[in-house]
Amino acid sequence: MRSDSNVGRRLAILGAGAVGRSVAELAGEYGHSVVAITDSSDAAVDDSGIDVSRTFARYDRDEPLGSAVPEAIFESAYDVLIEATPTTLDDAEPGFTHARRALETDRHAVLANKGPVAERYAELRDFERESEGSLRFEATVGGAIPVLSTIETYSPEAVSTVRGVLNGTANFVLSRMAAEGLDYDHVLAEAQDLGVAEADPTFDVDGTDAALKCVIVANVLADGGFSLEDATVEGIEAIPQSALDLATADGQTIRLIGEASRDGVRVAPRLVPEHGPLSVTGTRNIVQFETRHAGTLHNSGPGAGGPETASAVLADVDRLPSRVGVDGG
Amino acid sequence: MRSDSNVGRRLAILGAGAVGRSVAELAGEYGHSVVAITDSSDAAVDDSGIDVSRTFARYDRDEPLGSAVPEAIFESAYDVLIEATPTTLDDAEPGFTHARRALETDRHAVLANKGPVAERYAELRDFERESEGSLRFEATVGGAIPVLSTIETYSPEAVSTVRGVLNGTANFVLSRMAAEGLDYDHVLAEAQDLGVAEADPTFDVDGTDAALKCVIVANVLADGGFSLEDATVEGIEAIPQSALDLATADGQTIRLIGEASRDGVRVAPRLVPEHGPLSVTGTRNIVQFETRHAGTLHNSGPGAGGPETASAVLADVDRLPSRVGVDGG
Repeated sequence: MRSDSNVGRRLAILGAGAVGRSVAELAGEYGHSVVAITDSSDAAVDDSGIDVSRTFARYDRDEPLGSAVPEAIFESAYDVLIEATPTTLDDAEPGFTHARRALETDRHAVLANKGPVAERYAELRDFERESEGSLRFEATVGGAIPVLSTIETYSPEAVSTVRGVLNGTANFVLSRMAAEGLDYDHVLAEAQDLGVAEADPTFDVDGTDAALKCVIVANVLADGGFSLEDATVEGIEAIPQSALDLATADGQTIRLIGEASRDGVRVAPRLVPEHGPLSVTGTRNIVQFETRHAGTLHNSGPGAGGPETASAVLADVDRLPSRVGVDGG
Repeated sequence: MRSDSNVGRRLAILGAGAVGRSVAELAGEYGHSVVAITDSSDAAVDDSGIDVSRTFARYDRDEPLGSAVPEAIFESAYDVLIEATPTTLDDAEPGFTHARRALETDRHAVLANKGPVAERYAELRDFERESEGSLRFEATVGGAIPVLSTIETYSPEAVSTVRGVLNGTANFVLSRMAAEGLDYDHVLAEAQDLGVAEADPTFDVDGTDAALKCVIVANVLADGGFSLEDATVEGIEAIPQSALDLATADGQTIRLIGEASRDGVRVAPRLVPEHGPLSVTGTRNIVQFETRHAGTLHNSGPGAGGPETASAVLADVDRLPSRVGVDGG
């Protein structure tokens, strides 16, 4: 019994940054159409399918995405809402409300935005339980690396602990500091020049971004119960170059390691063997799964990037349960 | 929309070796029951569920598994047939017929046996297409490592090449030769003493086992078309210890690398960087996926072992489509 029932979904994409745009640009290749896309001020909506390349050609000339208001996206004939607006903390708005509105109208919601599933997981699952739609969020943890699918494959009950390198910017900084003997401020400035670090890299270097990902994993393992305030978080800002030299002299290095289990979430710089599995270099991420019967598994890959993260979003779309019937708005 | 429709399957297990036995022993923990299990001479069948620990306590005292003939397993009230008999080449019998019979009666077939999907993939998919049942075979490649699920997650079209270390015995031998400066015959004998290598390790060291796994991957990528005779295979038997010394002096080492793409299958000893991702040590396996948009991903973990491989089988059971209705025999 093989079917292709999951192709041909109509996507409504909230957010036109690197991830939202990549989802739109790759959707056709996966057999889906884009019926709406919005940034914070405008929306393009067309129930017969948006011409994505033409829309972004105009957008690149600083024209608006389309002639509709962002709110119009919820009136479009979409099957799957893609939430790719920036992650916000605490109430996780407006991402939370976006996902809630999709579920309340029996549509699917696929999130690239970490806020709603890190900060308000149980609430969102409650809305999902009442909905014909499903919630998926592979792209929120580890970019292109199938972290949540692997937990799903082995079932959450069979996974005890998930740990790893979950922030590419912090890992780039630490691996450059160790390899080149340069200090933190110097390498961070270099990372910003290269576009590896954002203009404001606070959440990457202070551990918040890795902690959000670990909170999401803990929520999946325990079926809810965690938010950012439950995490113990320490960043890499205070690590002197000399600490990396000391580690290297002993065959070790320092990595920002996040760890999630049913008992809690912790993010901190840790000593790891220089040639061990956790010491990936550059912006690569790695995730280690401790399982009940399958031993220790590792997945590594690009932890960020537009097309990479969009691949995770589109993998989620392909794994949604069979189509829920929505025709028209 | 969340459901637990996949728990409570009734399993019929063909094969009572390390994998079949582990599936039986772990089935209850995953919410399933075992209604039949067989070795090559006897079967235990009970439509209300076999007492697995009692059955194997007797089996360990050299008593038969049960009082039924192996053929009786097909008359049991099973939902999912687990094919865990030894891998055979060419016609892949009797594994092929076992899987065919399950599909022909609209049941699911989950394979740990590589033969049918390496040697007769297209035929088996034809039977699946006519069936209400589905075919899955995660356990045939990389033991506990989710290789086929990862390809499925990203969709086969989005994966161009899969390569890696897919035989733990060969990898144990090569990594011990490099680390200890010992020659092939010495290390192989040691591996046999430790139970890492079988009494007849031919298929492990001549590359056949890795090639079968790569053929299966190529079949998944290309939706069929490959069998073992399409693979170019070279083993590790002729590698002198001096070759490993030479490699090490240059920061490299030798690994038996299998590679699968739509263009073909190749297994051969290859030079890889000593601290690179492919140079796992001991019996660990690693798989590298080259994807179209998600960059290069790596998965590593235990490539063999009873409970480890059984975890992959049970993950397949959990991912089967919703139950097909079968009540009684």
